[in-house]
Amino acid sequence: MFVTASDIAKLIDGEIVGDPRARITQPSKIEEATEGSISFLANPKYEHYAYSTKASALLVHKDFAPSKPIQATLIKVSDVYRALGVLLNHFQADQGLSKDISPLAFIHENVTLPEGAAIGAFTVIRNAVSIGERTIIGEQVYIGEHVTIGNDVLIYPGVKIYPGVKIGNHCIVHANTVIGSDGFGYSVDEKGVYHKIPQIGTVEIHDHVEIGANTVIDRATMGATIIREGVKLDNLIQVAHNVDIGTNTVIAAQTGIAGSTKIGKNVQVGGQTGFIGHIRIADGTKFQSKSGVLQDVGEENQILYGSPAFERRAFLKSYILFKKLPELADRIRELEGELRKLRKDSPEK
Amino acid sequence: MFVTASDIAKLIDGEIVGDPRARITQPSKIEEATEGSISFLANPKYEHYAYSTKASALLVHKDFAPSKPIQATLIKVSDVYRALGVLLNHFQADQGLSKDISPLAFIHENVTLPEGAAIGAFTVIRNAVSIGERTIIGEQVYIGEHVTIGNDVLIYPGVKIYPGVKIGNHCIVHANTVIGSDGFGYSVDEKGVYHKIPQIGTVEIHDHVEIGANTVIDRATMGATIIREGVKLDNLIQVAHNVDIGTNTVIAAQTGIAGSTKIGKNVQVGGQTGFIGHIRIADGTKFQSKSGVLQDVGEENQILYGSPAFERRAFLKSYILFKKLPELADRIRELEGELRKLRKDSPEK
Amino acid sequence: MFVTASDIAKLIDGEIVGDPRARITQPSKIEEATEGSISFLANPKYEHYAYSTKASALLVHKDFAPSKPIQATLIKVSDVYRALGVLLNHFQADQGLSKDISPLAFIHENVTLPEGAAIGAFTVIRNAVSIGERTIIGEQVYIGEHVTIGNDVLIYPGVKIYPGVKIGNHCIVHANTVIGSDGFGYSVDEKGVYHKIPQIGTVEIHDHVEIGANTVIDRATMGATIIREGVKLDNLIQVAHNVDIGTNTVIAAQTGIAGSTKIGKNVQVGGQTGFIGHIRIADGTKFQSKSGVLQDVGEENQILYGSPAFERRAFLKSYILFKKLPELADRIRELEGELRKLRKDSPEK
Repeated sequence: MFVTASDIAKLIDGEIVGDPRARITQPSKIEEATEGSISFLANPKYEHYAYSTKASALLVHKDFAPSKPIQATLIKVSDVYRALGVLLNHFQADQGLSKDISPLAFIHENVTLPEGAAIGAFTVIRNAVSIGERTIIGEQVYIGEHVTIGNDVLIYPGVKIYPGVKIGNHCIVHANTVIGSDGFGYSVDEKGVYHKIPQIGTVEIHDHVEIGANTVIDRATMGATIIREGVKLDNLIQVAHNVDIGTNTVIAAQTGIAGSTKIGKNVQVGGQTGFIGHIRIADGTKFQSKSGVLQDVGEENQILYGSPAFERRAFLKSYILFKKLPELADRIRELEGELRKLRKDSPEK
Repeated sequence: MFVTASDIAKLIDGEIVGDPRARITQPSKIEEATEGSISFLANPKYEHYAYSTKASALLVHKDFAPSKPIQATLIKVSDVYRALGVLLNHFQADQGLSKDISPLAFIHENVTLPEGAAIGAFTVIRNAVSIGERTIIGEQVYIGEHVTIGNDVLIYPGVKIYPGVKIGNHCIVHANTVIGSDGFGYSVDEKGVYHKIPQIGTVEIHDHVEIGANTVIDRATMGATIIREGVKLDNLIQVAHNVDIGTNTVIAAQTGIAGSTKIGKNVQVGGQTGFIGHIRIADGTKFQSKSGVLQDVGEENQILYGSPAFERRAFLKSYILFKKLPELADRIRELEGELRKLRKDSPEK
Repeated sequence: MFVTASDIAKLIDGEIVGDPRARITQPSKIEEATEGSISFLANPKYEHYAYSTKASALLVHKDFAPSKPIQATLIKVSDVYRALGVLLNHFQADQGLSKDISPLAFIHENVTLPEGAAIGAFTVIRNAVSIGERTIIGEQVYIGEHVTIGNDVLIYPGVKIYPGVKIGNHCIVHANTVIGSDGFGYSVDEKGVYHKIPQIGTVEIHDHVEIGANTVIDRATMGATIIREGVKLDNLIQVAHNVDIGTNTVIAAQTGIAGSTKIGKNVQVGGQTGFIGHIRIADGTKFQSKSGVLQDVGEENQILYGSPAFERRAFLKSYILFKKLPELADRIRELEGELRKLRKDSPEK
């Protein structure tokens, strides 16, 4: 089975440069593509592959001007990643998700499942759970009492959702993620013994949120930990109690956000970043990976880096000089020596 | 259903300032409170909310002296967090945990369960496991052979406990945490191939320990990885083989402790901190989050920060100058220029 | 039951110094050993224990020359860790793994299991899965459609493997690890809304790979995320889409590798290290724990440290001066003062 470059151009609203009849059987990475593949070029770092790739077609940005001849049929689009998304959707195989309600699941007698919902084997749905239409819940999932899940949600195997959590529509939660575990809250007595502060709040996840694998989102002490519309969280992320993450914010893997911190809209957070508790981050802030954020970010759209984090370019300037510290220290020593000499030579002495 | 401010004051041994008959139906965060709420003020950063909150009652420290009029009834206590703990316990809803032994669990025929123990659906209890009184084990938990679990323990869904692990009394383990996985130990041969060193030790968890979600505690190579009484571990923490964590130490999320490191008592570790292997940390040490600890800490009660970590105030002083390195470098360059001029002007030359 | 020091020396090809008839019942750590134990000394930091240990025998390096009398029988070997591996294998108890096919597992009717394969309770094996000889799959594991697993593989409880993943022979995967979850790929539109790019690639894990607990390996966008022969990954590691990890590379806990990064052979990565995407790391590179790697490493066998990382010794030199920045700043201020004085005194002015 194949499609032509021309078919694909129509699908993604692209402009053909080259042979529109080129036959495409699969998408491939540009450096691994064989005949019959369609590849894409988005990162300029990979441009050299465009001249040697065996791909039959190549998605490129509409302004891409090759500096050498290219064998592949070009399909020019205004947003390469978006076109790629449409294209991959077209080629995506069935993912083998549950399609019906497994007789091996445990579903509490009070739960009514809507048409089109699917529940995998060895999954537990406790009392008073509400599940939306076309929502698919994988194998070995645990859904605690009074949890509410919207329509068109996809919960992968092994996810554990504590009682009372609310999940909106069109969300995806990857395998073994935990939502609604207790916040890390204790009072300490005069003997240094820690006493648990009950965590009676919950977690609210709004629409169109995707959460990676093995991530943890703790419930609030009181009120709710909130993940707002369109947020994308990667794998192995820690979201502590009472955190609030703003609309369309994306956070890369292994980032941690301590209690009660409020992150704005359209924020981008690189992997392994850490935020202390009780701070506020302005909309549009970007954090380079591995940053450590210790205070409020009040001004919008800054790019920050370092631990503690400050303006990225200033950090990099300082870091270049950090590498040269041995040289700077030598120069100080030399200045001191010269000055000592000068003072000795000085006529007054 | 409601209680009065006066009822609560009795419960938490507090002193009322204001209307003792104020009606309370729920606890809320100070910034979100509505009429009928009781809130608390512990962090001075939030004091301004005290003057605008709609809460009907407010837990405050006994020394709190408002700078403006406050509408809420104040309940003054000597430890706000502790009082909050008691209060939240009072309001905490039933958490929907397993209350009996699910017929859908697999329990080895040799295991005898005590009165009051509960086991969730799809949980596996292997041969020669011992489980204490009133211990609740959630759904989809795996308890390997010869594991011992004490009384009043709460194991949340999805936890996996490898064979031979010992857990004390009054412990809590959150969802999808793994206890007793193999330590990361290999010998490497002349070809660079790694050969597994069998990990034949175990893990011992003493009384009153709480462990967060998706955390991992590896078994010892020989002997035991030990988590001592009253330790609190947050989510996504790595505890390597043969680590020993002292009494009443608290460790925040995503911290990692490499093999054979021994952490003292009453230590406080901020999130994303890393400890290399084979070091010892004195009692009472505090680590700011994201520290990297490369050597023994011999002196007690220090506060450390940085990667590699040293005394926190010294780190912050150095870091202020790190930010000013471009200015310092300019000043060195200027000094060199001036000195060059001086030498030229110097009469001897 | 016991063996003699002489039996053990034969087993690990060692040379006896002392009583060959010393009776050994168990291996123990040198600082905890009691009579009847065999211990080992590999890290010179622990040498002082050799003179006080109660162990009856001690594995040491063949060049070890005690500075004081030692009571234990010494067994001298050329590689202590390797000998320890052989020794511990000898003493290792049965790990209580599944030995047969549990009637409580769900195995798709199209799947044929080979002789000697074992499947734990509440495990799900979906359609068209292929499992090799003597492979043991623990409890509550999920194996998605079309997954291929080789011979002599050991999958611990709670592991989730998404559809289409390939695992070689002699691999070990620890509890609650996720393999094949979606890569973190989105396109963003002009309104700041993120749209998922389908991840249609897979994960390939070659022979003799061991993967720790709660680790995540994402599937490729297209093509495959590849973990090559002999790689050892610790716990809580993030491996993003299209990463390629070279033969015999070892990576410690909580490290994260962003998309499309290619790590060479025989690389050693300390814990909590982070790699940005789209970079290449030369063979034999070593990273100190908590490094942040932002660019290609082209030269082989370097040791790197810091965030951003550079040559380890240079980093440590700079870091010593970072600690002394307050002193360096003082010396600059002093130089400026002296120069001001000199200029005043200078005859021309």
